[in-house]
Amino acid sequence: MSTEKLLPLLQRQVENLREQGIAKGRENIITGFVEAGEGFGPRVLLRDYPDRRFLRMNSNSYLGLGRNPRVIAAETAAAEHFGAGPGAVRFISGTFQAHIDLERRLAAFHGREAAMLFSAAYATVIGVLPALIDEATLVVSDELNHNCIIKALRLAKPGEKAVYPHLDMAALEHILSVHRGQFKRVCVVSDGVFSMRGDHAPLDEIAACCRRHEADYEQGVITVIDDSHGVGALGVTGRGCEDICGARADLLVATLGKAFGVNGGYVVGKQEMIDYLRETAASYIYSNPITPAEAAAARIAVEIVDSAEGRQLLETLRQRTTKLRNGIVHAGYETVPGEHPVVPILVRDTAKTSALVKHLFARDILVTGLNYPVVPKGEQEIRVQVSTEHSERDIDYILSALTSF
Amino acid sequence: MSTEKLLPLLQRQVENLREQGIAKGRENIITGFVEAGEGFGPRVLLRDYPDRRFLRMNSNSYLGLGRNPRVIAAETAAAEHFGAGPGAVRFISGTFQAHIDLERRLAAFHGREAAMLFSAAYATVIGVLPALIDEATLVVSDELNHNCIIKALRLAKPGEKAVYPHLDMAALEHILSVHRGQFKRVCVVSDGVFSMRGDHAPLDEIAACCRRHEADYEQGVITVIDDSHGVGALGVTGRGCEDICGARADLLVATLGKAFGVNGGYVVGKQEMIDYLRETAASYIYSNPITPAEAAAARIAVEIVDSAEGRQLLETLRQRTTKLRNGIVHAGYETVPGEHPVVPILVRDTAKTSALVKHLFARDILVTGLNYPVVPKGEQEIRVQVSTEHSERDIDYILSALTSF
Repeated sequence: MSTEKLLPLLQRQVENLREQGIAKGRENIITGFVEAGEGFGPRVLLRDYPDRRFLRMNSNSYLGLGRNPRVIAAETAAAEHFGAGPGAVRFISGTFQAHIDLERRLAAFHGREAAMLFSAAYATVIGVLPALIDEATLVVSDELNHNCIIKALRLAKPGEKAVYPHLDMAALEHILSVHRGQFKRVCVVSDGVFSMRGDHAPLDEIAACCRRHEADYEQGVITVIDDSHGVGALGVTGRGCEDICGARADLLVATLGKAFGVNGGYVVGKQEMIDYLRETAASYIYSNPITPAEAAAARIAVEIVDSAEGRQLLETLRQRTTKLRNGIVHAGYETVPGEHPVVPILVRDTAKTSALVKHLFARDILVTGLNYPVVPKGEQEIRVQVSTEHSERDIDYILSALTSF
Repeated sequence: MSTEKLLPLLQRQVENLREQGIAKGRENIITGFVEAGEGFGPRVLLRDYPDRRFLRMNSNSYLGLGRNPRVIAAETAAAEHFGAGPGAVRFISGTFQAHIDLERRLAAFHGREAAMLFSAAYATVIGVLPALIDEATLVVSDELNHNCIIKALRLAKPGEKAVYPHLDMAALEHILSVHRGQFKRVCVVSDGVFSMRGDHAPLDEIAACCRRHEADYEQGVITVIDDSHGVGALGVTGRGCEDICGARADLLVATLGKAFGVNGGYVVGKQEMIDYLRETAASYIYSNPITPAEAAAARIAVEIVDSAEGRQLLETLRQRTTKLRNGIVHAGYETVPGEHPVVPILVRDTAKTSALVKHLFARDILVTGLNYPVVPKGEQEIRVQVSTEHSERDIDYILSALTSF
């Protein structure tokens, strides 16, 4: 045993990524926060730049709940009461009252019968999809679906996998038509909000299309939507894509690690479906749940979103997002229309994308450059993410930095 | 779209599991702890049995660190400093000083150049193995390896997968001999401690066998060991299987969610290997890390294990484990020899296993019954897990309960 012969090969692969400009590279290390002041929102401190204060516009904490004092107080109280970790998987002795309370709250929030927690949204998708897909199942997937869906479908071994062009409902309709009679079950799976672009699946059209073909498949056509970026970020009540599309998924997956500001993933649906998944989803059965402290913190976050305070936060988020999106277009950049706080700046060139990221970093602004193969060639972009922690002056600040590029 | 036709099928599958006696079934819900007293260790409170106090012998928190005040204090301090969640994946803006500090500490603890955190040990294995395995790779795996390894190998698509009988070193040797020249790379993967039985892979023999065949494969023979149950539970210094075997894996995976009492997974190895994995392990790139608070808590847990206090805890754990194991044999039960705090009682019968679990539960003792297909037919067992939180009187108590069955 030895990695002597392998290491040079792996090093070369990393160098290749660097040469192509697509290595993730060195991570910035956050050492703390500087509180809001003088009309500006909070800033982050990075270890390697001790004299600078950065505007973080690449966080998924859209409502700033990760730093909400009530969320943190719930976390620390639960850690003191229950201890740090769960110490076991759920069905052995890893179920705490905090998990049950959060599952009830999530089910109620989404208007479903039941909810089920996982260690992460990634683990949720990896667990849920293979449990619902067998060799008699046709899986239909949007081409831009998240890595966790792609990996879950590889694990699942469906009878057939059909991929449709991004958001192309005519292609979905065609796929469901031509496979009629060939499979017993269909599973249509999509991101809700697509993380790279901030656009979203038309859940109402997907639902209508699936309903039209329901009778064509012996075990029906089910929809699984991962709306990790949409929940808590889109819609007047923060229900994400379901809110703005006025339609529902059969199984809705989402995360506690973005708008809700904590960590962990979950799925909501019918009681019998959740009962089934608790018996069959491997990443639930064989991996610890989130800690009781995280569950307690997340429950308070859900309660905040589901209150007048939450609706006000969502309104602020929309205002800031609109201001940024309009400003970006006004400054001559291309973006994707929509109301999601993921605001892409479509640069469509790898070198220029990297240069713009550097330009903003030099002005103490953190954004994410996305190059091929994370996004298709020609769609290289900068992803800017708005949060309620950003003030109007913060938005003005990034717009002026973009204008000076 | 609808689950109307599917739900009855899924319900029937759950009923089948129940009829076979292998459903996970209803989860007990822990509402809190009662502190140690009168020579007994702490007890847990279960929501559905408000008047009873349970001896929890099915937790992986072998050293009781999940309830250690210093661990909890580190968690709450970090939550207040950094906030609840990381808000992003590592390479975007999800790396906090607490993650870096923990990675350094873990690398030092295991005597390695570098460490890398994941959301869970399950996610670690799912991320690491596919990144190291390609179509020119022969994978060799112990038949009793954990579900996460099985799933990771399904994701990985190796050139060939060979499974050897549990701990059978002659079979491993044979596999490496007969495939000589057919593959460029070999990846030998095994649990360190096997969670169902408490026995462990002979890392020294595996290493020697792999060394003998190193020259037979162009890119070498590498070993990946998941010692989630061994680290913090086995060996005078708590280094797990590597401690007691006097040998090392090329890549060692372990968890922060068992002996260390928190949550999360990690891998340690050479710097170039970790650099490579940060660029290629999907469950690292596309999923949030553990929270900064969990990282801070886990760092204190590692520091405690790596101190005189930790060595004393490990000594206490060995004493309690030996007492239980000897008592079980003395009471006429069969077990698996060893020194790990997972002490199986081999019942070898599904109905009798269920009856013994019920007998112990009626006496306020929580253990885990393991039936087929979680364990092979004929190896049905009760898994009892010892912790330093168990007093000598607690061990006497379960032994007397076992004697009265």
